[in-house]
Amino acid sequence: MNSLCRLKEWFNLHCTQVQEEYFQWLRFASISADVQYAKDMRACALWVRDYLAKYTQMTSCLIETTGQPIVFAEDLRAGPAAPTVLIYGHYDVQPVDPLELWTSPPFEPTMRDGKVYARGALDDKGQIFYAVVAMRALHELIGPLSVNVKLCIEGEEESASQGLEMALSQLKGTLQADAILVVDFGQFDEVTPAITLGARGLVALEVTLTGSNSDLHSGEHGGLAYNPNRAMVELLAKLWGSQGYIQVDGFYDDVVEASADLRQQIDFALEPKSYQKTFGVGALGGERGRTMAENNFFRPTLEINGIGGGYFGAGVKTVIPAHCTAKISCRLVPNQDPKKIEQKLIEFLKSHVVAGMQIAFHSFGGAPAFRGSSDSFLAKAIAKAAEEVNGRACKKVLCGASIPIIAKLAKELEADVVGMGYGLATDNIHAPNEHFDMSRFEKGFLTLGRAIELL
Amino acid sequence: MNSLCRLKEWFNLHCTQVQEEYFQWLRFASISADVQYAKDMRACALWVRDYLAKYTQMTSCLIETTGQPIVFAEDLRAGPAAPTVLIYGHYDVQPVDPLELWTSPPFEPTMRDGKVYARGALDDKGQIFYAVVAMRALHELIGPLSVNVKLCIEGEEESASQGLEMALSQLKGTLQADAILVVDFGQFDEVTPAITLGARGLVALEVTLTGSNSDLHSGEHGGLAYNPNRAMVELLAKLWGSQGYIQVDGFYDDVVEASADLRQQIDFALEPKSYQKTFGVGALGGERGRTMAENNFFRPTLEINGIGGGYFGAGVKTVIPAHCTAKISCRLVPNQDPKKIEQKLIEFLKSHVVAGMQIAFHSFGGAPAFRGSSDSFLAKAIAKAAEEVNGRACKKVLCGASIPIIAKLAKELEADVVGMGYGLATDNIHAPNEHFDMSRFEKGFLTLGRAIELL
Repeated sequence: MNSLCRLKEWFNLHCTQVQEEYFQWLRFASISADVQYAKDMRACALWVRDYLAKYTQMTSCLIETTGQPIVFAEDLRAGPAAPTVLIYGHYDVQPVDPLELWTSPPFEPTMRDGKVYARGALDDKGQIFYAVVAMRALHELIGPLSVNVKLCIEGEEESASQGLEMALSQLKGTLQADAILVVDFGQFDEVTPAITLGARGLVALEVTLTGSNSDLHSGEHGGLAYNPNRAMVELLAKLWGSQGYIQVDGFYDDVVEASADLRQQIDFALEPKSYQKTFGVGALGGERGRTMAENNFFRPTLEINGIGGGYFGAGVKTVIPAHCTAKISCRLVPNQDPKKIEQKLIEFLKSHVVAGMQIAFHSFGGAPAFRGSSDSFLAKAIAKAAEEVNGRACKKVLCGASIPIIAKLAKELEADVVGMGYGLATDNIHAPNEHFDMSRFEKGFLTLGRAIELL
Repeated sequence: MNSLCRLKEWFNLHCTQVQEEYFQWLRFASISADVQYAKDMRACALWVRDYLAKYTQMTSCLIETTGQPIVFAEDLRAGPAAPTVLIYGHYDVQPVDPLELWTSPPFEPTMRDGKVYARGALDDKGQIFYAVVAMRALHELIGPLSVNVKLCIEGEEESASQGLEMALSQLKGTLQADAILVVDFGQFDEVTPAITLGARGLVALEVTLTGSNSDLHSGEHGGLAYNPNRAMVELLAKLWGSQGYIQVDGFYDDVVEASADLRQQIDFALEPKSYQKTFGVGALGGERGRTMAENNFFRPTLEINGIGGGYFGAGVKTVIPAHCTAKISCRLVPNQDPKKIEQKLIEFLKSHVVAGMQIAFHSFGGAPAFRGSSDSFLAKAIAKAAEEVNGRACKKVLCGASIPIIAKLAKELEADVVGMGYGLATDNIHAPNEHFDMSRFEKGFLTLGRAIELL
C-alpha cells in the first residue's frame, strides 16, 4: 500500500471523529474585528493548541501578541540538516452580518448535502484544521518526519495581522524556515487543483465626514446645512474615472506591469459570462480594456466595503445626519507600498471634500502583495501531491485577495512562499452561508500529508 | 381678572398634574415608521381619547384608517351659525436612533434645567398636549364656547399620513371646518412668537442597487464585480450640480418664484454665521447665490436621509456587498406635484445608474406644500393672543419642513390654514435629545386658550 492509500485509509477510519472535532472548532465565534469576541478568540486558540498537544508529537504553545494570541507548534526531530517548512493559517474569521441571510446560525455548523455551513468552514478554520489533522495522521502513520515542520496559526489575519507583525522581528528565530506554506487558498476549478504563487496586498481606511453637532431635521435645515451623506457620495464618486481607473494622484506610480513570463505561467479559470452567471453579477468592475485575470491578479483596486450615514431602518426618517462614514480598502500589487497608498488616498480625500465639511480618518493598516516561485522545493512537492490526489495536472494561479502578513513574514525569514488550498469562489467566504465540502476537506488533508511525506 | 390671567392661574394650580400627565403621554413609544410599535401607537391614541372624554365636554373617539387610528374630538355647542376651527396635531413620533446619543432614554421623559427630554417632547406630542390641556381649562373656566372646535390628532404625520389621506373624502363631513389650526410649528426666536403661513411639501423614496446574488469577497472579486456602493455614490453624486441645483430633468419646471409681497411679509430669524455656530455646521448647502431664507422657505431641496451598504461595524470587513440602499427625500414648494417629482427622480436614477446594475425603488408617497393667509379670522386671533402672551409683536414665517396632510386637508375642506407653535430649531426634533421647556409649553397653552376665547 502506497503512502497516499495509507492516508486515505486513516481518514476513512477517523472521518466521523474528525468531523466532530471540526464542528467543535467551528463553534468558537472567533471574530477578530470586534473586541467583544476576545474570549471566544482565546478559547479557540487554546482548543487547537491542546489538540496538537494531544494528537501530534509537536510541541505547542500560545504566543502572546499586542493583539490576539498565536498558536505555534513545531516538530524539529528531522534535525538541523533537514529543511524546515512553516505552515501558516489563521483561526480568526470575518464578522457574520447580515445575520438574517444565514440559513443556519454561523457558529452552529450544519451539514447540508455534504457541505458544512458555518463562518470559517473554509476560511481559514476549515483549511488549517485539515493541516492539523494531517500532522496527526503523519504522526500516527509514520512517526518522525524527514523534514522539520512548524505551524503558525494566527488570530488576526482578517484584521491586518498587527499582533504578529509587531512581534515579527522578535519571533524571527522561532518561526525560521526555508519555505512557508500558506494554507488559505483555492483550487483552480471544481476538479482541478492549484498552487498559488502570490496574492495582492491590502490597505484599509475609514473616513468619516461630520457636517453638524447633531442630526438635523431635513425640513428645518434642508437648503441650509450641507448633508454629509451628499458630501460623501460626491467625494467618493471622484475616486474613479470613466474607464475605471482610480483617480488618486500617484496611485499607479509604483505598479510594475507583470512580465510576459509570469502571465504565461498563470492560469485564470473565469470568463465574463460564466462569472456573471455564477455570481449574479450584472455589471463588471475593474479597468476597461483589461481582461478579468489582469484586473483581479495584476492590477490594484479600490472598494467601498461599507458606507453608512443617517437612517436606514424601516420607513422614513427625514434627517440630515451629523455624520457619514465609509470603509475603504485597496488591493495592491507587488511594489506598491501600503503606507504610501494610504497617504495618497488621505490626501486625495482631504483635498476633494467640500470646503467646511469635517473629515477624519481611522487607519486599519495594510500589507504589501507577495509572490512566490513555482521552482521552490515546497511548491514542487505541493504540486506533485495535488496531482496524485486529484489525478489532474496542478495549475499555477495568483490570488486577488490578501494574506496581510505573508510578504513581511517571507522577507523577515528570507523564505520562499507557496500557497495551497481547496476553496472555490462559490464557497461564500466573507459572506452569509460560508461552506466547505467534506470531500474537499479530505483532499486538502491528503495533499498536505502527501506533500510532507514527499519532502 | 381678565381671561389671560384666569388661564395663567388655572395653569399654576394644575401644573404639577399637567406635567405628570404630559410625561405619561410621552412614555408611549408611538413610532409610526416601524410596525413593531403598532401596539404602543394604539395605546397612545386611546390614552388621549380617554383624557379628552374625562376632562373636556368634547365627544371623543378613535377613527380607524388603513394605517394608524386618528383621535377625533368635537364640541359643536356653539351651533351652526358660529365658525368652526379644526385643530390638527399628531401623536406619532420619529424613530429614536442613534439611541446611544440620548443622554436619557427617549421614552422615559426626564426634566433637566426646566427642559423635558423625550422623543416627542415637542414634535408633536408636547404641542398637541398643550392644546388638549387648553380645551380642558376652557371647559372648566368658561363652559360652552362661542366657536365650534374639532380636534384631529393623527398617527402618521411622520410617515406621510397615508391613513388620513385615504380616508379624507369619507371624513370630509366629520372634519368640516372654516379654518385649520396646525399646532406643530415654531416661534420666531427665543423671545418672539410667530404664526406660520405655509410649509414645504415632501416626497420620499428608497432606492436599492443590487450588484450580485450575495456579498462577495473584495479580494476574490475586486476588479471583477462592480461594487453597488460605488455605483450608488456615483449615481447620487450626479443629483447636484456645482451650484447646488438639483440635476433631475424637470425638477424645477413647476416652481413659481415667490411674489415680492410674500417675501416682504415673511421674516427669517437666521443669518449664516449664527446658524453655523449654533448647529456646528461647517458647510452650507442649498443653491449658491440665494439667501438662507430663500433656500429654506422658497426653494425645493433634495436630501439623502440615509445611505447604507456593506459593513459598518467595528474594524474591517473586506466585502463587496450585494446591495446598497439609500433613502432620499425632497422638500417641495407650492405648485410642485409630489407624484410628478417622484417619477422624474426615478427616471433620473434609472437612466444614470451604471449599466447592468439592478435598481429597485420603494415609494413612501408624498404631499404638496401648503400656504395660508395672514388675513383669516383664525390667523388674526392666534397672532393677537400670541402678542398678549409674549408681550411682543407676532412675526409671520414659513416653515422649511412639511406637514404632509395639510395641503390635501385644506383643499378637501376648502378651509384656510394657519400654523402655531413654540418650537425652536435647537430643540433637536427628529434627533437625539429632543426637548421642550415647560415655560414654552405654558405659552402654547395660553396662546391657544386665549385665541379660542377671542374668536
